[in-house]
Amino acid sequence: MPDTHELYMPLSELQVIGVPGIPEVATGVNLGTLIAQSIGKAGLEVKDKDILVVAQKIVSKAEGQVLDLADVEPSPLAHRWATTHGKDARLVEIVLRESRRLLRMERGLLIVETWHGFVCANARVDTSNTPRGKVTLLPKDSDSSAAQIRQEMEREFGVQLAVIVSDTFGRPWREGLVNVALGVAGMQPFVDYRGQMDGFGRKLQVTRIAVADELASTAELVMGKTKGVPVALIRGMAYPPGEGHGRQILRSSERDLFR
Amino acid sequence: MPDTHELYMPLSELQVIGVPGIPEVATGVNLGTLIAQSIGKAGLEVKDKDILVVAQKIVSKAEGQVLDLADVEPSPLAHRWATTHGKDARLVEIVLRESRRLLRMERGLLIVETWHGFVCANARVDTSNTPRGKVTLLPKDSDSSAAQIRQEMEREFGVQLAVIVSDTFGRPWREGLVNVALGVAGMQPFVDYRGQMDGFGRKLQVTRIAVADELASTAELVMGKTKGVPVALIRGMAYPPGEGHGRQILRSSERDLFR
Repeated sequence: MPDTHELYMPLSELQVIGVPGIPEVATGVNLGTLIAQSIGKAGLEVKDKDILVVAQKIVSKAEGQVLDLADVEPSPLAHRWATTHGKDARLVEIVLRESRRLLRMERGLLIVETWHGFVCANARVDTSNTPRGKVTLLPKDSDSSAAQIRQEMEREFGVQLAVIVSDTFGRPWREGLVNVALGVAGMQPFVDYRGQMDGFGRKLQVTRIAVADELASTAELVMGKTKGVPVALIRGMAYPPGEGHGRQILRSSERDLFR
Repeated sequence: MPDTHELYMPLSELQVIGVPGIPEVATGVNLGTLIAQSIGKAGLEVKDKDILVVAQKIVSKAEGQVLDLADVEPSPLAHRWATTHGKDARLVEIVLRESRRLLRMERGLLIVETWHGFVCANARVDTSNTPRGKVTLLPKDSDSSAAQIRQEMEREFGVQLAVIVSDTFGRPWREGLVNVALGVAGMQPFVDYRGQMDGFGRKLQVTRIAVADELASTAELVMGKTKGVPVALIRGMAYPPGEGHGRQILRSSERDLFR
């Protein structure tokens, strides 16, 4: 019986740092520059191979993915659902417009597949941390958003980075929400164990760990929802290198047993 | 428009430390003492309010939740399923015994609700990192396991700790697996935002973040699957105090739209 557990293992240690002082984000702002300024003002630095996690909310705001409820004309379906469940018909209408498939319409909940492929409640059309009368939508292409922030930040700091655009999703079977990765740049979203052996020389059953999602969850711990910290740095992680994408995490309908 | 984003925010920083040198775990071993010794040998320390995350695998081994495949007599159903899908009928039999409900039997996959209430593939009956011919089951009561490790570690180090017993689960809609919390002691599993206001004075839509799951995912980043690091310390997190449990994270069948 091989005793890999007894081998000397180097100490692995991560740091997770919330970036304070990010101002309210206006449409059209260069998010990379804005984040770089906040990092500088806070006396923080960015190191080679850091992972920058950015909350979807500020990405959507910077990209103008903000709608004015007053401009929305609800469809008959949106009206009926809103009336039955005490919702704002304009909000329901936006959810329907952002969807390509409705998985569940039950107990006032709308679980949808968005046109980007995310499965989530209300297509993550969100009114929180947004001025009254406005809602944010998900970024049009979160992978492109991550790539753009990465490019701006790498130019700013002269180092190699990975960037994750994160958001807060519910899930079946378990209460509470967790942060997941919508967009990824500068790393692979998975650590792939396929074909690797465990300490007993047996092929591992667990195949792929969605580390991009785990990194998004990690960053949430220093972000919170009311602290105004929409950006975090994760340092010390030997993340899987390469040009991966958040869309790789989306399971296709054909491979899914719960759609 | 209140400008909470501009307020001074204290720097929040977490450390995530993999504990090296945990030896192969035998049935009946005192896991708290074992972990404490490894922490000492590694020159690490345990600080007040640290969170200790322990992989299910070593908890199951310590508690004797290990079965010998040779002792298992498969039922007709296990035989049929195993034959159709090229599986070991004894393994399938154990999965059925650990289940109280089968959610999906498709394409060789068994997604079950275990008798503890976890929804996962194969009831997490697992052959990896286990001697040939043996399998591990989930701990009988992961919350009790966490509470016992906490008690042992608190006595050992004279500090207040939270403990999470973690495991690796798949999920619908998204590829790859992530670590979640099975058992929790010394903290609440959720940060609860119900009734709280955002920076614009609007009630937050996101209600409860499952921080225990996010902490389990965070710890996985330093654990890996082949590195022999089944324990991690997370430091610097102002976790929700109180006597919470991992079983609170389990959504009841009645509240679930996907069962």
